[in-house]
Amino acid sequence: MKQILLPIILLVGSIYGYIEDSINPALSDETSLLPPPQNISYGTLSGQIDPCNLNFDINMSVKGSNHLQDLLAYYKPRLFPNISQNCNIKKRLLKAQVNTIKFIINNDITELMTKSLEDMDESYEIYVDQDLTQIQIKANQYVGYVRGLATLKQLIKPSKKNQGFYEVKFLPLIIKDAPRFPYRGFMLDTARHYHSVKTIKEIIDVLSSAKFSVFHWHIVDDESFPMELKSFPSITLNGAFSADKVYTREMMTDIINYGLKLGIRVIPEFDNPGHTRSIGYDPELEPLMRCWNTNFSYYLPDAYRIKGARTGVLDPSYSQSYEVIEGILRDINDIFPDNMLMLGGDEVLTYCFDENPKIKDFMKENGILTYSDLFQYHIEKVKKIVANINANKTTLYWSNEDTFFLDFKPNDILLYWGQSSNIGNLSQIYPNNKFVLLPGDHYYLDCGRANKYGGTTWCEPFKSWWSIYQFEPEDYLTKDRVYGGEVAAWSEKFNDLNIHSAIWPRALALADKLWGQKVPTDLQRLTTRLHLFEKQLESQGIPFTPITDGYCEASNICFERRDPLLQVANPIHENVDKYNFIK
Amino acid sequence: MKQILLPIILLVGSIYGYIEDSINPALSDETSLLPPPQNISYGTLSGQIDPCNLNFDINMSVKGSNHLQDLLAYYKPRLFPNISQNCNIKKRLLKAQVNTIKFIINNDITELMTKSLEDMDESYEIYVDQDLTQIQIKANQYVGYVRGLATLKQLIKPSKKNQGFYEVKFLPLIIKDAPRFPYRGFMLDTARHYHSVKTIKEIIDVLSSAKFSVFHWHIVDDESFPMELKSFPSITLNGAFSADKVYTREMMTDIINYGLKLGIRVIPEFDNPGHTRSIGYDPELEPLMRCWNTNFSYYLPDAYRIKGARTGVLDPSYSQSYEVIEGILRDINDIFPDNMLMLGGDEVLTYCFDENPKIKDFMKENGILTYSDLFQYHIEKVKKIVANINANKTTLYWSNEDTFFLDFKPNDILLYWGQSSNIGNLSQIYPNNKFVLLPGDHYYLDCGRANKYGGTTWCEPFKSWWSIYQFEPEDYLTKDRVYGGEVAAWSEKFNDLNIHSAIWPRALALADKLWGQKVPTDLQRLTTRLHLFEKQLESQGIPFTPITDGYCEASNICFERRDPLLQVANPIHENVDKYNFIK
Repeated sequence: MKQILLPIILLVGSIYGYIEDSINPALSDETSLLPPPQNISYGTLSGQIDPCNLNFDINMSVKGSNHLQDLLAYYKPRLFPNISQNCNIKKRLLKAQVNTIKFIINNDITELMTKSLEDMDESYEIYVDQDLTQIQIKANQYVGYVRGLATLKQLIKPSKKNQGFYEVKFLPLIIKDAPRFPYRGFMLDTARHYHSVKTIKEIIDVLSSAKFSVFHWHIVDDESFPMELKSFPSITLNGAFSADKVYTREMMTDIINYGLKLGIRVIPEFDNPGHTRSIGYDPELEPLMRCWNTNFSYYLPDAYRIKGARTGVLDPSYSQSYEVIEGILRDINDIFPDNMLMLGGDEVLTYCFDENPKIKDFMKENGILTYSDLFQYHIEKVKKIVANINANKTTLYWSNEDTFFLDFKPNDILLYWGQSSNIGNLSQIYPNNKFVLLPGDHYYLDCGRANKYGGTTWCEPFKSWWSIYQFEPEDYLTKDRVYGGEVAAWSEKFNDLNIHSAIWPRALALADKLWGQKVPTDLQRLTTRLHLFEKQLESQGIPFTPITDGYCEASNICFERRDPLLQVANPIHENVDKYNFIK
Repeated sequence: MKQILLPIILLVGSIYGYIEDSINPALSDETSLLPPPQNISYGTLSGQIDPCNLNFDINMSVKGSNHLQDLLAYYKPRLFPNISQNCNIKKRLLKAQVNTIKFIINNDITELMTKSLEDMDESYEIYVDQDLTQIQIKANQYVGYVRGLATLKQLIKPSKKNQGFYEVKFLPLIIKDAPRFPYRGFMLDTARHYHSVKTIKEIIDVLSSAKFSVFHWHIVDDESFPMELKSFPSITLNGAFSADKVYTREMMTDIINYGLKLGIRVIPEFDNPGHTRSIGYDPELEPLMRCWNTNFSYYLPDAYRIKGARTGVLDPSYSQSYEVIEGILRDINDIFPDNMLMLGGDEVLTYCFDENPKIKDFMKENGILTYSDLFQYHIEKVKKIVANINANKTTLYWSNEDTFFLDFKPNDILLYWGQSSNIGNLSQIYPNNKFVLLPGDHYYLDCGRANKYGGTTWCEPFKSWWSIYQFEPEDYLTKDRVYGGEVAAWSEKFNDLNIHSAIWPRALALADKLWGQKVPTDLQRLTTRLHLFEKQLESQGIPFTPITDGYCEASNICFERRDPLLQVANPIHENVDKYNFIK
């Protein structure tokens, strides 16, 4: 028996025998859960499971137990693929050892998700006793069972010994698990390219299986407005790429419910007053847009010129701007149940306000001195609109080096997308706020693929799985100031055909790290669990970009186990480029 | 009527009416063939085609006409998808105008491909007269008809007016076309990851439709040896990743024949004496490997160490090395009919020779002074082996800044993969050779995705479609020294699931440029034809990474038409990063 990471379970560990924590790939395979549990103790035995004679024990008198049944309906074919075929095989060679998966339920689980992320308790425990007959999963909330099943999915594998059977190794087993940070997010931009509901659900599948908690839906932007609206249907009519590239209310609700079932909060974003050009495609609303007629030209070598960032800013001096915003926010409030609402506030080109000579009059009337103050005025005005629609909403905003002049309310959550090197300043600039970190130099999944004009972008180079692991929030801020982090998939170069292969498995490094350890202790195990996840994706037919080459995949000897505390010298680093012949 | 590019067809052009060469997207759509034909003249009419009543007129008395029938069997469902369904529709509303596609054949076409790339005549002509009843395709060799059909595929589109019909616009039409460079290559590495025959055939489909001429198959390397051998079966047994990751002789022949049918020469590579570690996985051959036990360590930040470039060099002082090489080359010669044979000669770590103390004795006996001379000795020895096996083979070698000390025979073709800035020196260093250019700073499709350890590579950044267009061989060498160019897909990060989305459509920029104009004359048309190709890929179910965002795709106003001779000033270039808000 071996305790991993936390001394707290040494006592439990001592009950059973001892497992040598060797570099045996088979062993590291089995214990390479992604993300790694906070506490795990395991033995040397293995338990066979007959999926055709497995009892799922749920106390049906508990309120909300039907939710667990729905969840099991989702998980059963994923835990035991081709189960119906296997059950037709008449001869059973073996008496199964594990015959029950028991849900230990102490509370009602009527709510799939708490309204607030802070109230969410994702902790769970898994037990397999020495008699090996029962896998027990225990949690305090529905979402805890979701996390526990995600772990179980990685523990149960087809039996190598008995066809049609499955097995769990390293029994008896105790896992006591909970996340390090509550907000483990993935952001998808559906405005630069439209992504189908099918693809978004597949993304949620993968997110849930790696214990993410948030799907941040950057649904609209300058480029298109694919969201159906009751308030201003003409915005969608004019602003979507086409009639078949719209998310109807039904489709959005479908995605939200799919996320709720799988423990993924779907948080909508309506970025304003900037990034709203698609609203101006509605001829009646075009007058509200500033910078509408501005084409920033972008010059390339030779004689080529391309028309640059087409953007739009809703004019904060028009009351009609706020009528539009309120309409959109009422639609969002109708559809999205989560208490978190992302209001953007990103990249407002304040000099666009120069276009409207009457803005100066409006500012005078309202005692607004600068364009920055006008931006602040807009933020506060919209915040009041939100409070009026739904007092329970927690508002989220973008933050980076360009907008440090803005003030926010203490409960506002800031999604910081600037450079990691500036994160240390955040606790002084915003002493009362919590942060979700998306440093562009680590967490932007779209970097390094050229921009929409084929040129380089500000966020070069490509962010590899290694780069994602390298960023540690607690290196920059105290833990209480960090809500979590988020990887972002801006979709200039991501469409419905390439999104999976573009983001997996490297995006999972975020959940691996923010759920699990502060420092990955072992490069071999880290790469092993990413590679095991690749195999899982492959079996689900989800494309991915492999983290390493076929030789390193097959042999698992490219990556070494190292004592993380041992700082090694780097004598040949200068020669790496010379010796590291990778064309 | 409008002549494009070449004054030679002005006379022809004057026969018909005149078309305003406007920036009308519809017009640029229709004439945005990829690659653009050398000469095209077109009118203002449009011709309807009823695919159910279309006559393919082939003079069956010509020898080899059966090859054209096979080619048509491939093309018919691609030209007219769902033709069988459409033909069941009883009512025909319209009398078709174009009722015949006629192949004008003046020569026997018994050979699918000439033995030599230099003798290959890819020219073709397409005519549609004023009566619009007949599309005529004329060529001198089989491959010319392949190229002509690739053009026709892009010209024929579903009729917008008549369901079940197709149409060709801009008639009457004259196309007289031939490539600028004969070697327009795509290299696939199947050693770092195995790619299925299905995927390779799909790649050949796309290559052929964009008029590539060469599929350079980097079949084996250090990481694996997936090629079946009659000579040394144990090499494959030990060197392939697994038994199901082997190309059998049948599979290789299947791929070669598929290429031949579609005008794609399949050129095999056996890189030696370096990049041969996978041979050493055979225990009996391990003693021939130098640097076998060397693990170049690669240090990452913190305490992580990974084992770096695992390589192998066949010891040139052992006669057994040449027995192995001869065996492999005899296998290759049995299977691959093309007269071009790529022998590698890349990245030989000559200091590995220090491992074998007897090498010095061997060098003395043979009057070899330096390790570089020993490398040269090896090259010449293998060249003689090849000549002995098949005197007609033209040998190809890698070349970059590290191997400029090597001498080559005048007929050898050098595949230069160094920096573009050094290409100008090649004509002095190798005054008698022709070159295929794969400058790593423009043509390496794998760059910018992190290396196999998650770190950055020497060939950062990512090579976008724009970067591929930016390289012009004739800027560096006179045209007579350039065989052509090649984009390379090294497979550290490319597996069977992501290869398509990783390379398309940007790889096509190579064929677009090396077949077509020296300078793309119009950024809007260039991006339009890449985007049209994306739609073609989409309809074939081939994933790709879009060249731009959905807004630029839909509106086509991001990219401007410019006079290429007009050098514009760049007043706001400094502000690009500020204004160009692409996250």
